[in-house]
Amino acid sequence: MNIQSPVIAHESDLAAADGQSPEALVAGLATAGRAAQRQVALLSDAQKTAALRAVAEQLRADQAAILEANARDVTAGEEKGLSGALLDRLRLDPKRLAAMADAVEQVASLPDPVGQVIDRSERPNGLQLSRVRIPIGLIGIIYESRPNVTADAAALCLRSGNAVLLRGGTEAIHSNRAIHAAFASGLASAGVPAEAVQLMPSQDRALVGAMLTAAGLIDMIVPRGGKSLVARVQADARVPVLAHLDGICHTYIDAGADAEMARKVALNAKMRRTGICGAMETLLLDVQFGDSIALVGDLIDAGCELRGDARAQALDPRIGAASDEDWDTEYLDAILSVAVVDGLDAALAHIARHSSHHTDAIVTGDDAHAERFLAEVDSAIVMVNASSQFADGGEFGLGAEIGIATGRLHARGPVALEGLTTYKWQVRGTGQIRP
Amino acid sequence: MNIQSPVIAHESDLAAADGQSPEALVAGLATAGRAAQRQVALLSDAQKTAALRAVAEQLRADQAAILEANARDVTAGEEKGLSGALLDRLRLDPKRLAAMADAVEQVASLPDPVGQVIDRSERPNGLQLSRVRIPIGLIGIIYESRPNVTADAAALCLRSGNAVLLRGGTEAIHSNRAIHAAFASGLASAGVPAEAVQLMPSQDRALVGAMLTAAGLIDMIVPRGGKSLVARVQADARVPVLAHLDGICHTYIDAGADAEMARKVALNAKMRRTGICGAMETLLLDVQFGDSIALVGDLIDAGCELRGDARAQALDPRIGAASDEDWDTEYLDAILSVAVVDGLDAALAHIARHSSHHTDAIVTGDDAHAERFLAEVDSAIVMVNASSQFADGGEFGLGAEIGIATGRLHARGPVALEGLTTYKWQVRGTGQIRP
Repeated sequence: MNIQSPVIAHESDLAAADGQSPEALVAGLATAGRAAQRQVALLSDAQKTAALRAVAEQLRADQAAILEANARDVTAGEEKGLSGALLDRLRLDPKRLAAMADAVEQVASLPDPVGQVIDRSERPNGLQLSRVRIPIGLIGIIYESRPNVTADAAALCLRSGNAVLLRGGTEAIHSNRAIHAAFASGLASAGVPAEAVQLMPSQDRALVGAMLTAAGLIDMIVPRGGKSLVARVQADARVPVLAHLDGICHTYIDAGADAEMARKVALNAKMRRTGICGAMETLLLDVQFGDSIALVGDLIDAGCELRGDARAQALDPRIGAASDEDWDTEYLDAILSVAVVDGLDAALAHIARHSSHHTDAIVTGDDAHAERFLAEVDSAIVMVNASSQFADGGEFGLGAEIGIATGRLHARGPVALEGLTTYKWQVRGTGQIRP
Repeated sequence: MNIQSPVIAHESDLAAADGQSPEALVAGLATAGRAAQRQVALLSDAQKTAALRAVAEQLRADQAAILEANARDVTAGEEKGLSGALLDRLRLDPKRLAAMADAVEQVASLPDPVGQVIDRSERPNGLQLSRVRIPIGLIGIIYESRPNVTADAAALCLRSGNAVLLRGGTEAIHSNRAIHAAFASGLASAGVPAEAVQLMPSQDRALVGAMLTAAGLIDMIVPRGGKSLVARVQADARVPVLAHLDGICHTYIDAGADAEMARKVALNAKMRRTGICGAMETLLLDVQFGDSIALVGDLIDAGCELRGDARAQALDPRIGAASDEDWDTEYLDAILSVAVVDGLDAALAHIARHSSHHTDAIVTGDDAHAERFLAEVDSAIVMVNASSQFADGGEFGLGAEIGIATGRLHARGPVALEGLTTYKWQVRGTGQIRP
């Protein structure tokens, strides 16, 4: 194994300058990626595990080069006046880099989904049918300033037998190239073709457009980033997209909810981390729930701004007025909209109208209400007596996630290795012909 | 139950004339369909079974009206000079109508996929997770001249808890309206909202375009018809499409294949029905297979035109020359391209280059070759020692199929009730908060 990965030359910065169209450049990369994927698809569990362990080792060995490249990005970002939050997402340090390598190693140890038999049957004519998991093919990842996505996403794609085409944020370009170089060295040492993990060689924005329209060349696009990125990808893509746009998550406190549980769950759902997609954005309080005053008091005391309808405002003078827009807003901040509703049916109606179909929760002591909520709320994740902040692949035991999907097809909620696979039908016969 | 369904008035022929845009018209229908689907999603297995049985009974009761409507379509088609094949697809008679009603009854008796638990787990913190099958939502079906698609597709969608928006061929408009009227009466008698099964009220082609771009309103489009229809739908749709464009199916005869089995399977794969998507279009003969002359002779004697490469032409003087195009052509006719290849690897390479990823088969006596073929051929269906004509939902034991999919996401191969569902995560807690 190489101890220090050379940062790979980026030929197609030249190619683009040479006048190759964005579509031709992406087609060339995708064709190479697809060819590599045909080999990756046939790697054994042990081979993929070994390759990812080699990558993790290489990431650790390349610490100096990666941190140096990252320092260049951070300096450039400071000069460009990036916000503190953006710079924080961009910045790597030895601890974050070690966590990145550990995460790759954890993905290496997840069970291999490829080859799993989903179901099998035998027909009366003796044909034996089985549906077997296979990789999807070539996955495109379009992301923003977090360099760790480079390693996380590539590891998940490779573990599930896919090839990946990565297009990270311009502000992280040097970091991403250094991380990608470590990946390339690690994979090469394990005999995996380099084109299995490709980083877009130029940051030309037209290349993103070419990825989005590369139907038949790229099998699925996963955008990782803020709402404007996801919205652009969803609007322009002709390739299937796995994503969520909004996490407008509701928690409904039912009449008979245990007061202590309701207060604890609501506070956690909103305030544990306000910036994640599973954070509660709207609180619905049954008018019959007896401890609403204490519950909203907890939230306000914890530093949350509350915006309520008239009945909610009556609970506490510190609650401002919600506008119509508030019910459709994902704050990702210490702000919460609050409505008082007349029972379960009113809560269900509010959620049906305003939910983004990500995660919605009920706190209740009534089993029938719990089951109705689970059945009738049309979201990727529905919860009873739990904090919506659990909406996460790791918390669901999936090991790691490529993202959370709120679309209706293929995969929903936290998407991990299984969501990066599809299946084929294998039919074994003894010479059967169809009558 | 009504014995005779009135043919429902088609208000939006007027609406369209009134100047409502195609997008607004489709949005109105889709919104009504989505509202109905929320009710259909909650129907019990027994309720859906009863509703479909009522529809089957109504189709039988409406025989005179449906056949009369169909006769109008056939007469109009004859006047327009439709081909004999098209007229045959269009034509209903008492036997075909009885088969249509029987098919609806068969779908009624299939197991309800909605509510099935895909998997469940318990987390160390006590959270109980389950993934539960739910309907997809509103399905759009765009089809051509076969009126039975109206009943088949609507029955499958309803059985799986979906609502459906049907847009059939203009040449079958009266037949489709009469069948839809029977559906509406049957559903009404069982208390199912009429908007669960809607027929596009006008044949304006702009409405098809509006369906294809109704992202967020229609959840999935299934085109049923010829290649030009499917190609248009795939090119223009912004809504996910479940379809196959081509069935360029290969059968490879391996060196050690049993001669009798190979001859029988090849003949059936090509000639049983030449017009179906699972029909063999290219035959690959290992140069080492000893009975190629007899095998191609069988096909020619059965009336098949063979177009071969140089080595295949040497097998029989009646074999014409294949052009480059032949290897990428789905004939859907008694024509077959034939190549002689140097073993399994050459066959795999040919298939990788030319397959449409629908169904490919090997005939072999070598288990290792069989397993390599099953693993390495990247098609929705891969077969060993069986006729590719088995590529069919009924033959796979799925009861009925909405179509065959060659895309990579969501569902592949024959798609039946399960492919018309998605899932949600249900999480049951006891007050857990995330640390």
